[in-house]
Amino acid sequence: MLTIDDLGRGARTAARTLAGATAAEKTAALHAMAGQVTKAADEILAANAGDMETARELGIGTALLDRLLLTPDRIAGMVGGLRKVAALPDPVGNQTGGWRMYNGIRLQRVRVPLGVVAVIYEARPNVTADAAGLCVKSGNAALLRGSSYALGSNRAIGMALRAGLEDAGFPADSVQIVEDTSRDGARALMTATGWIDLLVPRGGPGLIAAIEAEATVPVVIDGAGNCHVYVDAAADLDGAEAIVINAKVQRPGVCNAAEKLLVDAAVADEFIPRITAALAAKGVELRGDERARSLAPDLIPATGEDWDTEYHDLIMAVAVVDGVDAAVDHIRAHSSGHTEAIVSNDYNTVQTFVAGIDSAVTMVNASTRFTDGEEFGFGAEIGISTQKLHARGPMGLEALTSERYVLYGDGQVR
Amino acid sequence: MLTIDDLGRGARTAARTLAGATAAEKTAALHAMAGQVTKAADEILAANAGDMETARELGIGTALLDRLLLTPDRIAGMVGGLRKVAALPDPVGNQTGGWRMYNGIRLQRVRVPLGVVAVIYEARPNVTADAAGLCVKSGNAALLRGSSYALGSNRAIGMALRAGLEDAGFPADSVQIVEDTSRDGARALMTATGWIDLLVPRGGPGLIAAIEAEATVPVVIDGAGNCHVYVDAAADLDGAEAIVINAKVQRPGVCNAAEKLLVDAAVADEFIPRITAALAAKGVELRGDERARSLAPDLIPATGEDWDTEYHDLIMAVAVVDGVDAAVDHIRAHSSGHTEAIVSNDYNTVQTFVAGIDSAVTMVNASTRFTDGEEFGFGAEIGISTQKLHARGPMGLEALTSERYVLYGDGQVR
Repeated sequence: MLTIDDLGRGARTAARTLAGATAAEKTAALHAMAGQVTKAADEILAANAGDMETARELGIGTALLDRLLLTPDRIAGMVGGLRKVAALPDPVGNQTGGWRMYNGIRLQRVRVPLGVVAVIYEARPNVTADAAGLCVKSGNAALLRGSSYALGSNRAIGMALRAGLEDAGFPADSVQIVEDTSRDGARALMTATGWIDLLVPRGGPGLIAAIEAEATVPVVIDGAGNCHVYVDAAADLDGAEAIVINAKVQRPGVCNAAEKLLVDAAVADEFIPRITAALAAKGVELRGDERARSLAPDLIPATGEDWDTEYHDLIMAVAVVDGVDAAVDHIRAHSSGHTEAIVSNDYNTVQTFVAGIDSAVTMVNASTRFTDGEEFGFGAEIGISTQKLHARGPMGLEALTSERYVLYGDGQVR
Repeated sequence: MLTIDDLGRGARTAARTLAGATAAEKTAALHAMAGQVTKAADEILAANAGDMETARELGIGTALLDRLLLTPDRIAGMVGGLRKVAALPDPVGNQTGGWRMYNGIRLQRVRVPLGVVAVIYEARPNVTADAAGLCVKSGNAALLRGSSYALGSNRAIGMALRAGLEDAGFPADSVQIVEDTSRDGARALMTATGWIDLLVPRGGPGLIAAIEAEATVPVVIDGAGNCHVYVDAAADLDGAEAIVINAKVQRPGVCNAAEKLLVDAAVADEFIPRITAALAAKGVELRGDERARSLAPDLIPATGEDWDTEYHDLIMAVAVVDGVDAAVDHIRAHSSGHTEAIVSNDYNTVQTFVAGIDSAVTMVNASTRFTDGEEFGFGAEIGISTQKLHARGPMGLEALTSERYVLYGDGQVR
């Protein structure tokens, strides 16, 4: 198995080639990668079947099994994803600012690749292709460490991606699968100072805590999504119901699903019985504060911990709040900084909510489920940042770049 | 002495007020802060005299004593700095992107303050006013931890700044001086997760190593400046001499001073004897590789360590390289990512250098000393980032902000 130094050296060398490549050359590489994934579909499906068998033997739950599973359709999805990213404009080389200094020096701020990007992720093998495509398109070498359950699938996908890179004249080490899926392997990535310019950890609270405690390389955290929907007195309640149901039920296992419902006291009498019945009919387990439970006695009493928890499941906690200011206070106290939504047709209330919230994304009269790189138009996403530095919200190509300065003078000194 | 939780709570509360303030209100606050510093000049000078006396008793070196010293002129400089930052455009609220999504949602990306910014810095008391001004102008609360030598001065400056904030109707805790200047005090800031949105450590390798090992809060590192000047065969040698002398001698103790001189072998015979004599005449201690020493035998033999060292002093190491490619390779191997300069009038050589270097700032035919927030036009700087994430190079107001998304829909669901 390659050491982190082996991986880092290969990635660093490849990164220099990638940084010098033109947009057209990188686009061609992504199409070649897509072509090789198509060609290797049978090998990838066979490797995935092996992963699935092992996972079943280990008694893995059905939700995780579904994430792990590859089908011809899902492989076509990966290929389509690579071709979609290939078609995006290249952020590298964009001049993001520039002016003439007082002394005549022409100053330019230019977007450049970060260098080597590492991603730690869960058991979804399609992330391997998505992340590789975004990294190569933005001129970065990729170190991809998926879950141990998906190692066979990731190896097969990685071989295809590397073959495509070589077809297009790029070093195979532009994309490397990290085979050490142990905790020590993750720790080696977290502390690979000098080799890694950005580490994106995607995973549960355990991974994030380990990153916060141990990482010495630059990190952008794809953290928890304890997302809120606030239904205001001035909401259209039909619209509010549709948004709450969609935000909670359409895909409860993802980070942009809503976990908390806050209802303005002024409409709680009408809305809480109605929405809790509708959610319960969709199989949602409901928990509530005292005021919510007084209107919907079936709700399980919510504990203090509930308000800070991302369930990742068909569970929702409901609270009654006294208007938008109380909603903002509740959210600021408990949010993980991902996505918060308001449903209201009152102009001033919406203004107050938008000004008061400090999360990556604020939704007005729309489902929290729209916080997503593809929905935003980024083609795909390397993760969703819940931190404030560097990148916030869905991270596309631009988040994988840095801006450096070049100053053109003619002999100026101070 | 206040605990980190006390400081954090005060800062967090003030940050919410600051985030909601208009540009005009923040500008008025900076002028009020400037006014109070002017008013408190005598108290500040008296406190500084006390710091100076203690520092002298402790046998502190003259370079540090000079940094610590305040004079009426230097206080006027702090006041001028606050007023200059007051006059800068407010980055907060700028819409940095926006489009209509496929489903009609209007998406906006908006610049917002980070929240609470902490700075750990050395014995220069003027940094206290500079950092406070930049933080308040960009809507952030500031936690400022200077060196123990400057604590009396910083307290006095902090009192004046806080009085100005109150004059302008802002919470005094918008700016707080961290009085615990021990190593534990620094560690408390580094690990104050939840209280601090950005920590900028400014200091030597010891501080940076501690940050890398221990920090759990988001950090942008103001790191070492092992800056290079490459003098190419196609350089105007008079211009090259002026740039090298300026870059090394004008202020050798700062991070944008040049530490290394690389000379193209094609002009080494002519340039090395000339530049080393000129540098020696300015009191610079010169070290060299074998090729440089064969042309200037007085040079001290450079060790391997020299090439990676930031001297912060009147010392320079000189090497002979075979053209621009070798210069780029040398710099990539040894640079700290701060500033590198080329002196050349050959178009293609300049292109090769600019493309090959991956530091925060690349200078063409200009002194490395221009890497500076004020020189760039940022009014002042909170530090110079040598990392690639979030901000790179001199950090002004924009580096103290984050960009969040607000999506305006009319009932959209997925």
